[in-house]
Amino acid sequence: MTQDASPRIWIYDTTLRDGAQREGISLSIEDKLRIARQLDALGIPFIEGGWPGANPKDVQFFWRLQEQPLTQAEVVAFCSTRRPHVKASEDSLLQGLLAAGTHWVTIFGKSWDLHVTEGLKTSLDENLAMIQDTIEYLRSQGRRAIYDAEHWFDGYKQNREYAVETLKAAIRGGAEWLVLCDTNGGTLPQEVAQIVGDVVKLIEAEDTSPGKIQLGIHTHNDADMAVANAIAAVIEGANMVQGTINGYGERCGNANLCSLIPNLQLKLGYPCIKDEQLANLTQISRCVSEVVNLAPNDHAPFVGISAFAHKGGIHVSAVERNPLTYEHIQPGTVGNTRRIVISEQAGLSNILVKARSFGIELDKQNPACRQILERLKALENQGYQFEGAEASFELLMREALGGRQHFFTLKGFQVHCEIVPCPTESDCVPSALATIKVSVNGKDILEAAEGNGPVAALDAALRKALIQFYPVIADFELTDYKVRILDGNTGTSAKTRVLIESSNSHQRWTTVGVSSNILEASYQAVVEGLEYGLMLHSAAVKPLNAASLS
Amino acid sequence: MTQDASPRIWIYDTTLRDGAQREGISLSIEDKLRIARQLDALGIPFIEGGWPGANPKDVQFFWRLQEQPLTQAEVVAFCSTRRPHVKASEDSLLQGLLAAGTHWVTIFGKSWDLHVTEGLKTSLDENLAMIQDTIEYLRSQGRRAIYDAEHWFDGYKQNREYAVETLKAAIRGGAEWLVLCDTNGGTLPQEVAQIVGDVVKLIEAEDTSPGKIQLGIHTHNDADMAVANAIAAVIEGANMVQGTINGYGERCGNANLCSLIPNLQLKLGYPCIKDEQLANLTQISRCVSEVVNLAPNDHAPFVGISAFAHKGGIHVSAVERNPLTYEHIQPGTVGNTRRIVISEQAGLSNILVKARSFGIELDKQNPACRQILERLKALENQGYQFEGAEASFELLMREALGGRQHFFTLKGFQVHCEIVPCPTESDCVPSALATIKVSVNGKDILEAAEGNGPVAALDAALRKALIQFYPVIADFELTDYKVRILDGNTGTSAKTRVLIESSNSHQRWTTVGVSSNILEASYQAVVEGLEYGLMLHSAAVKPLNAASLS
Repeated sequence: MTQDASPRIWIYDTTLRDGAQREGISLSIEDKLRIARQLDALGIPFIEGGWPGANPKDVQFFWRLQEQPLTQAEVVAFCSTRRPHVKASEDSLLQGLLAAGTHWVTIFGKSWDLHVTEGLKTSLDENLAMIQDTIEYLRSQGRRAIYDAEHWFDGYKQNREYAVETLKAAIRGGAEWLVLCDTNGGTLPQEVAQIVGDVVKLIEAEDTSPGKIQLGIHTHNDADMAVANAIAAVIEGANMVQGTINGYGERCGNANLCSLIPNLQLKLGYPCIKDEQLANLTQISRCVSEVVNLAPNDHAPFVGISAFAHKGGIHVSAVERNPLTYEHIQPGTVGNTRRIVISEQAGLSNILVKARSFGIELDKQNPACRQILERLKALENQGYQFEGAEASFELLMREALGGRQHFFTLKGFQVHCEIVPCPTESDCVPSALATIKVSVNGKDILEAAEGNGPVAALDAALRKALIQFYPVIADFELTDYKVRILDGNTGTSAKTRVLIESSNSHQRWTTVGVSSNILEASYQAVVEGLEYGLMLHSAAVKPLNAASLS
Repeated sequence: MTQDASPRIWIYDTTLRDGAQREGISLSIEDKLRIARQLDALGIPFIEGGWPGANPKDVQFFWRLQEQPLTQAEVVAFCSTRRPHVKASEDSLLQGLLAAGTHWVTIFGKSWDLHVTEGLKTSLDENLAMIQDTIEYLRSQGRRAIYDAEHWFDGYKQNREYAVETLKAAIRGGAEWLVLCDTNGGTLPQEVAQIVGDVVKLIEAEDTSPGKIQLGIHTHNDADMAVANAIAAVIEGANMVQGTINGYGERCGNANLCSLIPNLQLKLGYPCIKDEQLANLTQISRCVSEVVNLAPNDHAPFVGISAFAHKGGIHVSAVERNPLTYEHIQPGTVGNTRRIVISEQAGLSNILVKARSFGIELDKQNPACRQILERLKALENQGYQFEGAEASFELLMREALGGRQHFFTLKGFQVHCEIVPCPTESDCVPSALATIKVSVNGKDILEAAEGNGPVAALDAALRKALIQFYPVIADFELTDYKVRILDGNTGTSAKTRVLIESSNSHQRWTTVGVSSNILEASYQAVVEGLEYGLMLHSAAVKPLNAASLS
């Protein structure tokens, strides 16, 4: 449906900066790098990486990316305008920004007079100078600049003349994009359309070299309108859209790129990313939710697991005959799948596709195929989830196909923890002791180890028991450990799902365990992590495309 | 902001029928009655109660409501048009509808030719007759009728002439409202506005008694546009809006009334419900989520617990001075409250505001104030996070101010788990044993308990030890348990943060614990959960506004 006549829309992702403002999200540098690489693969042209002046940890992120650059995306560093009455070249925040070493920078400034006088406590003229100077200085340092006009819509409604002056200051400074921000998220689409239309006229009048200054839109979801507002702005002429994966952001979130991109590209014909990249949207949405450790929204438009779910009966046969009668788009265009509730049809083809991705050619007629599907459904019923644990899924498939090697057998384990209150916090080393019994090649091994928590003790005991048989285990590392409580409503006896990421020197893989006992769940995931690593090293089994495993 | 000049919008709630289609919702008659009474109190004029023809249980619901009528709302029964080539008076579904005994009925019919020929497998003419006959018959039985034009927008785009004929049939039958349904949820606001505009003109031309036929809108959220689409239709002249509380509904949900009503009434000036009813919106949203047993969406516009949450020092002092600078509406108008998030960026002003929300008047000069801030920052450095654990934060504040009562002292605990592989999964009951020693009023208590995981065992042992001193503990429940691994990169020896939500019969509160040993972290949160609950019950300490705690 893409009409080539429509102008390209430049998607600007701010998951790593504005998205991370969501309560409960706390990203490590590794998390940020993982997300950035996903966004790069999705074809997002601009990725805002953080505010290096305000948060020194963010500088590390930019440097790490310079060591292993992205394939196509520009990474953007974010900062406020200089402080009042400080030279731009002497402002420490701007020095932090420059230290990030990006080609592109985004500077946000005040559009609303009230925020200048009450927030910054400076004069309206000084604010205009701050906007212009800051951008000029950054341009002189070889940077290309995007200007985020904070509180634009409220400012424009309160004091139109002054708001317009702030944009003119940014134009004079040399900004290439003016991004209109609905910072409080309360504007409705009709107003957005009207105000963006006004700004388009203003720029046409102001800009002597037409086409140089471009317009962007940055919306929040406080009125449930973030996506509608961004689209209203695009229709009026904005060609940059700022948003976040899954709509993460403070309060009610930012504009959700997982809704915006398909609406713009599939329904309105504005090219944003390549069709084959769009087909990864669902997978990337879910991967990001795993990295930030938030449950995915099953009911999310386009990418939710229920977005194309159909219930039984006539509806299903109609949808099978002619999907357009009950589906607004083809689910595959965004990498989602139709889900026929109760029917297994969709599942079987998933298994085939999945097997193929592991380099296993499976035929629909192969009885193992149905066996895998049934095992998968039984495990999912128990709370397992293989979206983020493809190594466990590959082991399950190999088990069904008879190609799984068992390197050891668990005979049992015990964990003992003792906590005694201690006079000062630094004296207090909580200790755990684990004992494990495994059998390797018919020989029983009993080992014990300590750790500063029960899972660490268990992991140590298992490695101690196995390393004499599989010295390669010394190269394996546990790189991430995530816990999610399923059905939290049942309190401490709820089921626990543990995801463990392991790595050797050149690959990473993730495994899963589920139990109402967190130690049992952790043990399952630790064991599969070791098994998968051993499988990769085993000469008998060709290491399949493990590099692509999450 | 309400402008009396704007026409009244009639809100039509379909939580009990379309909302209940959401995967995972299953409502008993009692549940439905509870929700109906909430909607009635909210001032919703039309409540769709179910499809009594298709679901016999729904008839009971209508009868129960007749025994104890609602105060103001009309309850509406829902049904399809009669079956092809069956007389309306002989159609069993319509007999079921009449049995419900409501004044108002809603009949849905096909607008899209494809659905008539492929779905109903009848002729286009017969479908027109079905629409007209059905409504005529129900009118003859004393009912007032609303006509839902299913798949209206898709039908109109595919075969405009035929779609218009279906509306004319409903007008001839005697429908008082024509409701345009975006059944597949894929239409964008610009298209909705244009098509609704067309229909307004059509009705003006068709209707000989102007003002009799009115227009409604029914939208789904598959393109993340349900609310924007409904508003676009209202602006074009629709005066009935159908939606559900919290946007429940199949796939991606229906238009969310919790967003629609405030947008229409507060921002666009269309009266919907009384201001004092609007002030109950947040409470009713949360109550409905309790009844349907789904966790509330913390980030929901207007009614989410994070909808008016503020971070950071400067920001907080600005919002205190002039809320409009950072809030798009006053939270109280929808019954929500401003929340100052306690986080790393907290400054002294956050502490003061927070203290005030606990009913503690603190002066900036009070040395305890800086002491609390320093303690907070030290704990956050260790990985504590109080954003979601306000009860723990209140305990911390009371500790610093000397007003915290200590109900017991931990002497130590031990946890022992033993996992033995078992032949079948159902045999396999992972077991944990906890031993705890606490001192209450100078007396040492030693207790032991089992659980299906180590945390459950620990919780059980602690309760067992304390209940003789504090029988009220029997009312406390552990309602949610969340685990987050901090800095997952260090693998299983990473720090663990545990959040525990507890409740008594009328309040909920959340506490936090952090340790590299998950059992130690869990213990901390369990203990503070009990302490906080005891504090609420203690006569010595006035139970502050715990109702507003998350």
